[in-house]
Amino acid sequence: MTQLRFALAQIDTRVGDLDANAEAIMAYSRRAAAHHAQVVVFPEMSLTGYPIEDLAFRATFRRAAWDKANAMARQLAADGLGGLYVVAGTVGTDTESDKPRNRLVVLHDGVVWAGYDKHFLPNYGVFDEFRIFSSGQRSVVLDIDGTRVGLAICEDIWQDGGPVDELAGQHIDVLLTINGSPYEEGKTHTRYDLAVRRAHEVNAPMIYLNQVGGQDDLVFDGGSFVVDADGTLLERSPMFVENLSYFDFDKQAERQQIGTIAAEMERDEEVYCACVLGLKDYMAKNHFSGVCLGLSGGIDSALVATMAADACGGENVCGISMPSQYSSDGSKDDAADLAENLGAHYEVQAIEPLFQSFQRQLTLGGVAAENLQARIRGVIVMAYSNSRNLLALATGNKSELACGYSTIYGDAVGGYAPIKDLLKTRVWDLSRWRNKAAQDGLGLGMLPVVGNEAAASAKTVPSVLIPVSSIEKEPSAELRPGQKDSDSLPQYALLDQVLAAYIEHAHGRADLLADGFDETTVDTVMRLVDRAEWKRRQYPLGPKVTALAFGRDRRLPITNAFRE
Amino acid sequence: MTQLRFALAQIDTRVGDLDANAEAIMAYSRRAAAHHAQVVVFPEMSLTGYPIEDLAFRATFRRAAWDKANAMARQLAADGLGGLYVVAGTVGTDTESDKPRNRLVVLHDGVVWAGYDKHFLPNYGVFDEFRIFSSGQRSVVLDIDGTRVGLAICEDIWQDGGPVDELAGQHIDVLLTINGSPYEEGKTHTRYDLAVRRAHEVNAPMIYLNQVGGQDDLVFDGGSFVVDADGTLLERSPMFVENLSYFDFDKQAERQQIGTIAAEMERDEEVYCACVLGLKDYMAKNHFSGVCLGLSGGIDSALVATMAADACGGENVCGISMPSQYSSDGSKDDAADLAENLGAHYEVQAIEPLFQSFQRQLTLGGVAAENLQARIRGVIVMAYSNSRNLLALATGNKSELACGYSTIYGDAVGGYAPIKDLLKTRVWDLSRWRNKAAQDGLGLGMLPVVGNEAAASAKTVPSVLIPVSSIEKEPSAELRPGQKDSDSLPQYALLDQVLAAYIEHAHGRADLLADGFDETTVDTVMRLVDRAEWKRRQYPLGPKVTALAFGRDRRLPITNAFRE
Repeated sequence: MTQLRFALAQIDTRVGDLDANAEAIMAYSRRAAAHHAQVVVFPEMSLTGYPIEDLAFRATFRRAAWDKANAMARQLAADGLGGLYVVAGTVGTDTESDKPRNRLVVLHDGVVWAGYDKHFLPNYGVFDEFRIFSSGQRSVVLDIDGTRVGLAICEDIWQDGGPVDELAGQHIDVLLTINGSPYEEGKTHTRYDLAVRRAHEVNAPMIYLNQVGGQDDLVFDGGSFVVDADGTLLERSPMFVENLSYFDFDKQAERQQIGTIAAEMERDEEVYCACVLGLKDYMAKNHFSGVCLGLSGGIDSALVATMAADACGGENVCGISMPSQYSSDGSKDDAADLAENLGAHYEVQAIEPLFQSFQRQLTLGGVAAENLQARIRGVIVMAYSNSRNLLALATGNKSELACGYSTIYGDAVGGYAPIKDLLKTRVWDLSRWRNKAAQDGLGLGMLPVVGNEAAASAKTVPSVLIPVSSIEKEPSAELRPGQKDSDSLPQYALLDQVLAAYIEHAHGRADLLADGFDETTVDTVMRLVDRAEWKRRQYPLGPKVTALAFGRDRRLPITNAFRE
Repeated sequence: MTQLRFALAQIDTRVGDLDANAEAIMAYSRRAAAHHAQVVVFPEMSLTGYPIEDLAFRATFRRAAWDKANAMARQLAADGLGGLYVVAGTVGTDTESDKPRNRLVVLHDGVVWAGYDKHFLPNYGVFDEFRIFSSGQRSVVLDIDGTRVGLAICEDIWQDGGPVDELAGQHIDVLLTINGSPYEEGKTHTRYDLAVRRAHEVNAPMIYLNQVGGQDDLVFDGGSFVVDADGTLLERSPMFVENLSYFDFDKQAERQQIGTIAAEMERDEEVYCACVLGLKDYMAKNHFSGVCLGLSGGIDSALVATMAADACGGENVCGISMPSQYSSDGSKDDAADLAENLGAHYEVQAIEPLFQSFQRQLTLGGVAAENLQARIRGVIVMAYSNSRNLLALATGNKSELACGYSTIYGDAVGGYAPIKDLLKTRVWDLSRWRNKAAQDGLGLGMLPVVGNEAAASAKTVPSVLIPVSSIEKEPSAELRPGQKDSDSLPQYALLDQVLAAYIEHAHGRADLLADGFDETTVDTVMRLVDRAEWKRRQYPLGPKVTALAFGRDRRLPITNAFRE
């Protein structure tokens, strides 16, 4: 046989939920087989979910994952699908050291071929894999009816040397990589460039299969693809949705056939979808069906509410207007208009009487009085969350969080902060993009993200979502008369540039000056950020006096469905 | 010369504060030289502070540390101390990879001998060193006037193989290790046993020099020591205080002379001191001179207030009684008595009127109403913190935090939680120990911890600190009529045993049953802990969509005195 059909199963998994993940793998395998695939490929650690953090250390979990993989292989054979090669990721155990391994396995002929162990273990940025796993030492070539398939897992292709280097000398026909690669702005092109380089090195087409979905504070964007050794794009799966597509490898052909190529998204759409998918999956995996949040009439809460309506439907969003004596009429109107546009519940809870009650006892002034208003709002939001079982959303953006322009236990209250990683200027950009998309017919809940596959066309499309005045008015916390953000912060257009350089690109003071920022701005922003970082760390910490303290030693993922 | 005098400088450092740390190193070096030491030894990364986390990645910081070390060497030479060997820890740079190194340097003759780079980089528990540093590859023997001194840094002696193994073949006279080893209950003996083994392996006395002080949520206990190759204890420094002592090595002698041996502490004293030092140093390094906290009359807040009075003096403790309609008269009296015993400020803020104001608007019932009371208290505590610049202390213990028996944004509010790592039964033990110590004459502020060296004898000694009824009464959150902790939790004597096994020793369900716990208790505790862990993770998280998100990518230590 010179033709081999690979099915690329870009799925969303649940950390620790072996049953649900196995079910998804079985269902996609059956679909792939029905479409005559001989190999079906699932993401890195797709059986266990990813990242599983310290769950990997539980021997009972590793045993359960192994048993589950074997049961799946037997079931496939019993269903007459023993001839299929199912490539999936799971947690393994190094027999020598008894340490966990990040492992690729192949289910075939009713058994589990313990396949390939990840070699390079990322331990930077969001990754802690060296902490958890031990390194695989061997490169592996899988022979499928005469087609030589070289194997790699995620980071293995990001580092020079190692398994891909070894595979280059082994005359492979296809390089197959399974990935759990989180979304970052601009990463699509980085991945593509890297893949082209690796495909060239091994002189074979490369399959890049990535997971999709939200997990804790990570969003995996999918966007799986296949490139040929000469850099030709042979397949591209869409981002942010589950997907099954095919790559027909022909060993005899001079050029591989080009399959389905999903359209690229524009940048604002990409980031907006990432935020909505993160929230939507966080809710689904933590069993929330609705959210509550404060609606101030400002742009941050407006964008968060809109994202929430896109994630779970406006009817499951509870917006709470909590005006004080300093809230403008315009703000109150904007909040009400937004709720109406979204089809959200809208309730008003004036904080003035509560504020007066506190002040009769405490007589606070200055910042303490401003914080008090924000904290009364926090108590109200949490009361809604507790009494109606709603996920409280915090509405802070990255610019204000970075500069400490926020009240701990006040507006920072919430179980999830959908825009905490968006600078203020991005908040405006995405708001404008979402309004424009609505005008172009993209109704609430119609975004191309996991779970929206069904009935998107049935949704109604409002002509405007976010009130224009929320986007255009000057930002204000409205905690004292006439207050403007620009009283305390540089203008956002400038601030965001400095923040990006200082926080995201780790430029030091000398670098920032060389970037062309003036000294006063640089020193102001550095002082704000450093102070905010210091304050942000003032959470309940205490000495570690026993073998294991909370929050520092034990690192478990949020969605832990595994029960021993 | 056959005699060599080592000075063991067990000091407290400040992360990122090169000036302050250099000043301490210079002062201790001068004192050591005045006492005829030829070698003076400082802890791991003593020039930079430890752990410096991602501060290591800043090239400007590494350059500043290098410049500072050179300036110190020149200054020592200028002061006529060029002949002294000053062994200290700092951050270095691997010239090949440009990555940070955890480095031991020797200042001598006016220059910096770039010495030894740590080989084993711990990346488990509280340690993230593999993330940050690259590994040193060489073992190093320092020849000091004919005495061969083998070098190692902390983790290097905890792993078999590596540098100590190499040193065993190199006929060294002394094994010198510098450490940043955090306190854990019972670790003193583990360290000693390990040192005896290593000293035996290299057939030479081993110097174990550890840092002291609190940093973030770690407490370093000092307790430096020297053991001979046959296991004889030759020197032991006290725990929890800065100290300078000496070890006279005699190459000709058959047995080394025994120096000063500090008395061992009993276990409760040790843990109590660790908690107080953690809080005291956290306050000092974050520039707080006073604290505020809610005083309920219960044992948790009573112990925290007493620790705080030991850390900063009763006159700097502000205790706030916040009774509700469910608070018993006994509780209110106990809170007042405690404050009087401690010499603390005491204020009463009834929450009933505030609770009624909220209820007029929100009409909450059940747990939401209970949480509302706790959150009103949280707002009040933060109002005191903001308006008087006091560090708010959270009073939760490990048992209730583990089981989720606490209100987020309510009683969990605070910048530091002194007893978050103590199980409830330990809270009672330490309270009894502290009361007994007071009877034996240990006044407030007289504890042997860093910063208490001066004027301890001048303090008055109260005959009783914690009201006996706070220790003896049945625990209750007092959030509804007649509520008792035992309504929701197993009895603490049993609960704490299960928690220790499940959380601290990572026993799974099968292990817990094999430990002899009954099935109902095991399932109850596991359910509570897993659910609490899930809820605890519901903090403002959001998707990571740009290159670097807060709280996940950037890991900076709290006390960041370094300014570029």
